[in-house]
Amino acid sequence: MKHLLIVILAAFITCGFSPAQNANTAGLSIKDDGKWQKASSTHRLAQFPKIHPDGRVWFRYKAPETAQIVKVHMGTTDYAMAKDTGGYWNVVISNPPIGYQVYWIIVDGTEVQDPGTDIYYSNGYRGVLEVPSPGEEAFYNPQNVPHGDTREHWFYSEVTGSFRRMFVYTPPDYDKNTGKRYPVLYLQHGAGELEMEWTHSGKANFILDNLIAQGKAQPMIIVMNNGFATKPSQEGQQLAGNARWAAFEEMLIKEVIPDIDRSYRTIPDKEHRALAGLSMGGMQTFSIGLNNLETFSHLGVFSGVPTNYSELLKVALDKGPSFNKQLKLLWFGAGTAEASFINRQKELQDLLVKSGINAKYFVSEGTGHEFQTWRRCLNQFAPLLFVQ
Amino acid sequence: MKHLLIVILAAFITCGFSPAQNANTAGLSIKDDGKWQKASSTHRLAQFPKIHPDGRVWFRYKAPETAQIVKVHMGTTDYAMAKDTGGYWNVVISNPPIGYQVYWIIVDGTEVQDPGTDIYYSNGYRGVLEVPSPGEEAFYNPQNVPHGDTREHWFYSEVTGSFRRMFVYTPPDYDKNTGKRYPVLYLQHGAGELEMEWTHSGKANFILDNLIAQGKAQPMIIVMNNGFATKPSQEGQQLAGNARWAAFEEMLIKEVIPDIDRSYRTIPDKEHRALAGLSMGGMQTFSIGLNNLETFSHLGVFSGVPTNYSELLKVALDKGPSFNKQLKLLWFGAGTAEASFINRQKELQDLLVKSGINAKYFVSEGTGHEFQTWRRCLNQFAPLLFVQ
Repeated sequence: MKHLLIVILAAFITCGFSPAQNANTAGLSIKDDGKWQKASSTHRLAQFPKIHPDGRVWFRYKAPETAQIVKVHMGTTDYAMAKDTGGYWNVVISNPPIGYQVYWIIVDGTEVQDPGTDIYYSNGYRGVLEVPSPGEEAFYNPQNVPHGDTREHWFYSEVTGSFRRMFVYTPPDYDKNTGKRYPVLYLQHGAGELEMEWTHSGKANFILDNLIAQGKAQPMIIVMNNGFATKPSQEGQQLAGNARWAAFEEMLIKEVIPDIDRSYRTIPDKEHRALAGLSMGGMQTFSIGLNNLETFSHLGVFSGVPTNYSELLKVALDKGPSFNKQLKLLWFGAGTAEASFINRQKELQDLLVKSGINAKYFVSEGTGHEFQTWRRCLNQFAPLLFVQ
Repeated sequence: MKHLLIVILAAFITCGFSPAQNANTAGLSIKDDGKWQKASSTHRLAQFPKIHPDGRVWFRYKAPETAQIVKVHMGTTDYAMAKDTGGYWNVVISNPPIGYQVYWIIVDGTEVQDPGTDIYYSNGYRGVLEVPSPGEEAFYNPQNVPHGDTREHWFYSEVTGSFRRMFVYTPPDYDKNTGKRYPVLYLQHGAGELEMEWTHSGKANFILDNLIAQGKAQPMIIVMNNGFATKPSQEGQQLAGNARWAAFEEMLIKEVIPDIDRSYRTIPDKEHRALAGLSMGGMQTFSIGLNNLETFSHLGVFSGVPTNYSELLKVALDKGPSFNKQLKLLWFGAGTAEASFINRQKELQDLLVKSGINAKYFVSEGTGHEFQTWRRCLNQFAPLLFVQ
């Protein structure tokens, strides 16, 4: 983030705002060469943010006339915007990090979501910018291949005492091959997020559509639950450590998996059941997976190695190489731009190698604690699942 | 809206903000009697907005310290908030309209979404408050009955030259009775909205789950598309009148319906195909439905009678009573608090009655141009569909 170059647009843009509006570049220090395009995350009705093929991003926001200081906050940096004669505030940022970038506008100290962009939920709704990653996007964008459906599936949880929903991806041939049964990947989101983020932000459905179409991954069902669950008796309590996941674990094992095995054509055994997740979901995978080795045969931890990994791994470390019979796949991935997670992953790798425990490790070059890392993780992890 | 009573909370609330926070009522002109509950639209991590069993709503918002004037905007009214000693701004509103109310916060002129509440998409993301409607909610809230799935279904549209998604509700027995085929209701959202709003905001899936469980409606598939569609050749053009729906109509008839009939176990004939929508979706139903009488047998117009209804009805008016053979159901509904729509519906009713054309008319008491009206419309309309 520190390496971003900032270019403030000169303050003489004179165009109005309409659905068909293009930027008037009269008086701009940066000329509109006709190559600026709406970001894929920009709304149908909005024209900004825009992306230039050279990688620059152009933000524009209409603040009240009385506004004094308007900024874009992205990553850990505030970028000052400059007001044009039309009352719009503008800033162009060069070399933003690729992928799925959270940002917001700050108007005299008040945080505002940019009304021109898509949002995702992480402890509140946040604006997001999809920054192109040339040469890489084909794996997570929709292609002209058969598409699986993602189903919103509702159930009543006795554990939490509430109606809950999960999202269930069924592969493209699911409704055609009605005699066929499928393995299941349980896939969890990160802290503060909702259960739709693996498809909405992570594009898990397109990643699997594309892998399946190329014969690179087995057709599988993916089940995405909300990882926050509390029992009515825990209401208002501050939980710590693995106690935070206890109700979720109970719900997953006793309610979700049986519901999925009843409702969908699964292969309902350990060999055909995987658990993975990002960040908090990775930590849950680590804890719940190792605690339920009779239920899951494949585990994937994306940017989620917890600080107490050696303690949680005790069950494996104590057994040494004989532990390898208990899992078909133990998989870790993290990005080079998320120091604590990639460092812990490397420490853990040293420990497991030394202990003779098999696992696979993936390093996502140049990406941080965001969905570009996790899209890549899923794209690497899914082909290794349920392979004979 | 004009009749709402406003009570500003006294400015001496001293509590902090934490997930387990309850309001400290010391110094308040309104006492916390322990009966305030989070609204069903309030986030897991937030405590406000809260609802009192007597109907009052309590909004709270943390503005920057420098903020001078903070308001809640709901309906057509700004409600002044008062700052407490903890830096939170508060207002209690008595007798808000029931149902699904859009609102936002205004901080010194800057519109902000309340981070404590759910949002819906209507020409941008908007905060929404679910105001209880005692005695009525059972029909649209989830009950202990079998639930259908709502599927996110992707397809490539040659008409628009883009990948698009639709949402497809399949009834609770769809995956069990794999030999059974179902009728289909095509159901459209309003202007500025997205294709998920009929389930997210309208709770169409729960309404059908509940009707089907009670034997009040036939099990049916519901298909929800984005009603905005333009051909690549129309890019940047300002379209008017029915030309606005031409690309959507072409996509619906030539691509969507065939895709649905290929992908799901439908009964692919006119007798088992309905079209309905709210507001803009009602106007689309009016135009596209009357233009495709060989495709649809049931039409539902919710708060959507257009100004040029008599012109659009010419095909029916010219035929008189013999037109009745062409449709099994022509249905209109609107709320008493949305003057132009309910008035046009009444004018149209007079015209149709005079012309001997059969239709049904529903009036939603006390509700305006929002989802409480449309939930009621769907609840009245769906039982009349596909009845022998």
